[in-house]
Amino acid sequence: MAETIGFVGLGQMGRQMAERLAQAGFALRVWNRTRQRAEGLPSATVCDSPREAARGVDLVVSSLADDQAVTDVVLGDGGLLAGLGDGAVHMGTSTISYALAGRLTEAHAARGRTFVATPVLGRPEAAARGELWILTGGDAAAIARCQPVLGVIGRGQVHLGTQQQALLAKIIANFMIASTIELLGEATALGAKGGIEPADLVRMLTQTLFGSPVVNGYGARIASGAYEPAGFRMALGLKDIELALGCGRELRAPLPAANVVREHMIEALARGHDAWDWSGVAAIAHEAAGLRAGDPPPSTRRP
Amino acid sequence: MAETIGFVGLGQMGRQMAERLAQAGFALRVWNRTRQRAEGLPSATVCDSPREAARGVDLVVSSLADDQAVTDVVLGDGGLLAGLGDGAVHMGTSTISYALAGRLTEAHAARGRTFVATPVLGRPEAAARGELWILTGGDAAAIARCQPVLGVIGRGQVHLGTQQQALLAKIIANFMIASTIELLGEATALGAKGGIEPADLVRMLTQTLFGSPVVNGYGARIASGAYEPAGFRMALGLKDIELALGCGRELRAPLPAANVVREHMIEALARGHDAWDWSGVAAIAHEAAGLRAGDPPPSTRRP
Amino acid sequence: MAETIGFVGLGQMGRQMAERLAQAGFALRVWNRTRQRAEGLPSATVCDSPREAARGVDLVVSSLADDQAVTDVVLGDGGLLAGLGDGAVHMGTSTISYALAGRLTEAHAARGRTFVATPVLGRPEAAARGELWILTGGDAAAIARCQPVLGVIGRGQVHLGTQQQALLAKIIANFMIASTIELLGEATALGAKGGIEPADLVRMLTQTLFGSPVVNGYGARIASGAYEPAGFRMALGLKDIELALGCGRELRAPLPAANVVREHMIEALARGHDAWDWSGVAAIAHEAAGLRAGDPPPSTRRP
Amino acid sequence: MAETIGFVGLGQMGRQMAERLAQAGFALRVWNRTRQRAEGLPSATVCDSPREAARGVDLVVSSLADDQAVTDVVLGDGGLLAGLGDGAVHMGTSTISYALAGRLTEAHAARGRTFVATPVLGRPEAAARGELWILTGGDAAAIARCQPVLGVIGRGQVHLGTQQQALLAKIIANFMIASTIELLGEATALGAKGGIEPADLVRMLTQTLFGSPVVNGYGARIASGAYEPAGFRMALGLKDIELALGCGRELRAPLPAANVVREHMIEALARGHDAWDWSGVAAIAHEAAGLRAGDPPPSTRRP
Repeated sequence: MAETIGFVGLGQMGRQMAERLAQAGFALRVWNRTRQRAEGLPSATVCDSPREAARGVDLVVSSLADDQAVTDVVLGDGGLLAGLGDGAVHMGTSTISYALAGRLTEAHAARGRTFVATPVLGRPEAAARGELWILTGGDAAAIARCQPVLGVIGRGQVHLGTQQQALLAKIIANFMIASTIELLGEATALGAKGGIEPADLVRMLTQTLFGSPVVNGYGARIASGAYEPAGFRMALGLKDIELALGCGRELRAPLPAANVVREHMIEALARGHDAWDWSGVAAIAHEAAGLRAGDPPPSTRRP
Repeated sequence: MAETIGFVGLGQMGRQMAERLAQAGFALRVWNRTRQRAEGLPSATVCDSPREAARGVDLVVSSLADDQAVTDVVLGDGGLLAGLGDGAVHMGTSTISYALAGRLTEAHAARGRTFVATPVLGRPEAAARGELWILTGGDAAAIARCQPVLGVIGRGQVHLGTQQQALLAKIIANFMIASTIELLGEATALGAKGGIEPADLVRMLTQTLFGSPVVNGYGARIASGAYEPAGFRMALGLKDIELALGCGRELRAPLPAANVVREHMIEALARGHDAWDWSGVAAIAHEAAGLRAGDPPPSTRRP
Repeated sequence: MAETIGFVGLGQMGRQMAERLAQAGFALRVWNRTRQRAEGLPSATVCDSPREAARGVDLVVSSLADDQAVTDVVLGDGGLLAGLGDGAVHMGTSTISYALAGRLTEAHAARGRTFVATPVLGRPEAAARGELWILTGGDAAAIARCQPVLGVIGRGQVHLGTQQQALLAKIIANFMIASTIELLGEATALGAKGGIEPADLVRMLTQTLFGSPVVNGYGARIASGAYEPAGFRMALGLKDIELALGCGRELRAPLPAANVVREHMIEALARGHDAWDWSGVAAIAHEAAGLRAGDPPPSTRRP
Repeated sequence: MAETIGFVGLGQMGRQMAERLAQAGFALRVWNRTRQRAEGLPSATVCDSPREAARGVDLVVSSLADDQAVTDVVLGDGGLLAGLGDGAVHMGTSTISYALAGRLTEAHAARGRTFVATPVLGRPEAAARGELWILTGGDAAAIARCQPVLGVIGRGQVHLGTQQQALLAKIIANFMIASTIELLGEATALGAKGGIEPADLVRMLTQTLFGSPVVNGYGARIASGAYEPAGFRMALGLKDIELALGCGRELRAPLPAANVVREHMIEALARGHDAWDWSGVAAIAHEAAGLRAGDPPPSTRRP
């Protein structure tokens, strides 16, 4: 007989994960702020509150946008934690702050429940294919309890230690992505000013020593110069870089390269590019070099 | 019968390339500033000047340290260019400035000789195994002429366009390496302040989305915290970042991330770490976070 | 007969302002979180809550540490706003965020009270002498109502517009001070590496084109190399730079120079200098250049 | 009877100094690369070479654009040094590199002549009024010898030590000016995004704690938003920031704030603003915040 689990938050990422879990045979108790997004899942019961979604199950998965949403949905009135049964596990996949990860851990423990952190690396397409990377943190037995779910949504796991450490690692990973975009932006801008097409420079990088999922994926996007539609919007990228800088402040670790990215993200928004993907940071480096999107490189212009 | 080629500059990189060429059956006319480093190669004639090494051959390879060395050895009295025969090709593997690449191209053309740029990516160990990546720029026929040599020293080639463009791409590649070291330094510093061992963070990065020859290789070095002996000394790294910033100035492309690296390299030298590998830039990020080399991460310290 | 006003918050700054007001003939209703700091003022009634201090007077002055304190003391239960009479004015001298300035303005207006922003520039010594600079924002009639108080505590006023604009100007002023400290730190570090004593360099700057209260005051401190005891602690400086960067994010204005200061402040804290004055940012620039506090410059060392 | 001195280099600055010296009664032997700029000075003999201008006088003043010009005019064939008599003094007012200052000192000493460094702070208008600030470095007796000239061209002197130290101080002063422009740019951009007119923000700064010749002068220019015609062109500003960064590299002192300015200067040139005054760095900060030159601040736009 199918196991029943709770699932709270059916946004771009959550919906994909929930669909895979339903297909894999889990019965779901689901809740979403906008109720209609919660409908249409097979074997799923749509609940009226996060508390209802958590009632009577051993395991609840959450997928929420940011600290504010997690605070409201988990800790608020009618929240997930209030519905969670004795000994039940809350598996949080959201990217939240290091501080909130600590607060959630304590709040669950104070009520005899268990929070485990399982932030995920990957875009919605990867979620749809069950190819997310999952960073895990928290009690080993509780993480073991999550394995049937983790095996359905992810291609692999890396265990980091505590719940806060899993979040910290996730925040660092996003800082690394954003900063790599910045480097690719500066590199392709400089190349283009010397007449090397961005696509040629990216090809050189990926063929030689720099090829990786991040460099290959974002390199191709930067070479194309197309920043809309966004896979991950600029304002969300800025939020994530702020999470890294916030950790840097709290843990006392300077991050000068992260600041370069931060200011370029703010510049992108100041210039009105709210709809851009966060990889548009590269376009800011291009514009600062006097290139405009779509410009052929100088060598092509002067025959 | 073996073809005879010239080879000028038998430093760490040059010696390895020359040995592979000798093993592959080339007869060599070699010159090195310190004569004794030029000795002991099979089928090699040690010459008294770069001009002598270039005399009577169709192809001369150069491997020299910097702009000053290339200017002296190629353009000076008794230099390579003076010895190069009519129609002969000079294949330059050195990392030099964008400006000097332009001057060399013109100086050779003005005398009816051909300069092709073939800067190489890889450390001496890669050179010893014939596994360098080679970036090529210049006349197609002249590059075709170099193929027997390129096939022996490299695992692959990327053609970029002009001689200056090949150098620009090489300078950009070194900027990307140095900046990636900086990112790994900031990332592991932040992780360590939150109790994540650098080796664990690097493992997470390489296993998920960031694995590449550069991240894997330098990540391991940073995780070990061992910056001596140097594979590529800090002062040389600084020289290469200055080449990138110099291109940025000349071609008018701002490179804010490159400046972060530059200042950390200067700080490393100011603190007396002249003997460090350039990956020691990461240690500067660690020290700025209050970590000292060899410190266990905070979580370990407080049991 | 003496006018009675409320005064809430008797920290380093508040106590000095309150004493001057008492000496100038105002009767005060005072409140401070730590009650004993509120005692000993002539003509003052110590109250049990901010609400009590605000009761029955036309004007209340507040001087509080940060957003959290202002939120609690003004908007909380038993707070200042709850005690403020119909038409009364709350004159806020604290440095708070741009966002909170907006919230305070609205919260007062919604209850028929008036909030005016009067953040002050100057250290406690200046407050003791009535030599603060006051930036004013808000309703003109309400500011006119504050003039008897403003004339006692300040040497002059600059009107900026709205309450938020007065706070923004104050935040910008603190960013300018912190960044000027950074510039003086880098300048004296570079000079010292070339054998110029910091005091001589500062003297050159102030005698020629750079002399101003900020450069003269902080220049002297940096030349002395003494960062304890703090006039304004590093962590407070970091809080203020974060306010500027927060405005930059909210209003979409990149502030790359502010980030340089921010990272140096975090580095100072990471290295354990919690007790330092924020001007110790300069010492971080000195240490990055391989100088240690108290080192004679190189020229002196090599006789 | 009038003393005769040599004067080499009659550009924007040199011409003004030479005219004041002529008016003060000095007879001049002058040389300029473009001869016609050397003509029309009272009591002046126009010479055919720097060597001729230096012949038979005890003191020669030079005012030249950069390292290249000084190297050519002083050390080249027919150069100033070749014409300088036994025991004569060469007083150099040009802003040159730290390294060249060292070479000039040695080259003069090797021939029994004396080089003193007297770089000047101030614009051509200040030179015309004899209100330059002069930084002096070198042998005390030789500087004493220069006093009759220094008294005519300057309003005051600061003695720094050696010739190199005088240049280093001058380079630092220009770094401080450029960085102050950057700070004013960021500050006024942030203010404008919050509805504070740049002129109002500058007025606040200068009236309170920040007023100095540099802040007042450049603040007014930034408030006006007019960057043409240039008093000191962007490319020259970039050259001077590069001198500071070059000193930082040579003396091993990181200058992160200087890099922020450098990249904004390169961006200004990349965007085609070659004709701008270097204070246009502020406009780059404004544009990065989404403001355009001439935009009214947001508050004005939304009535």
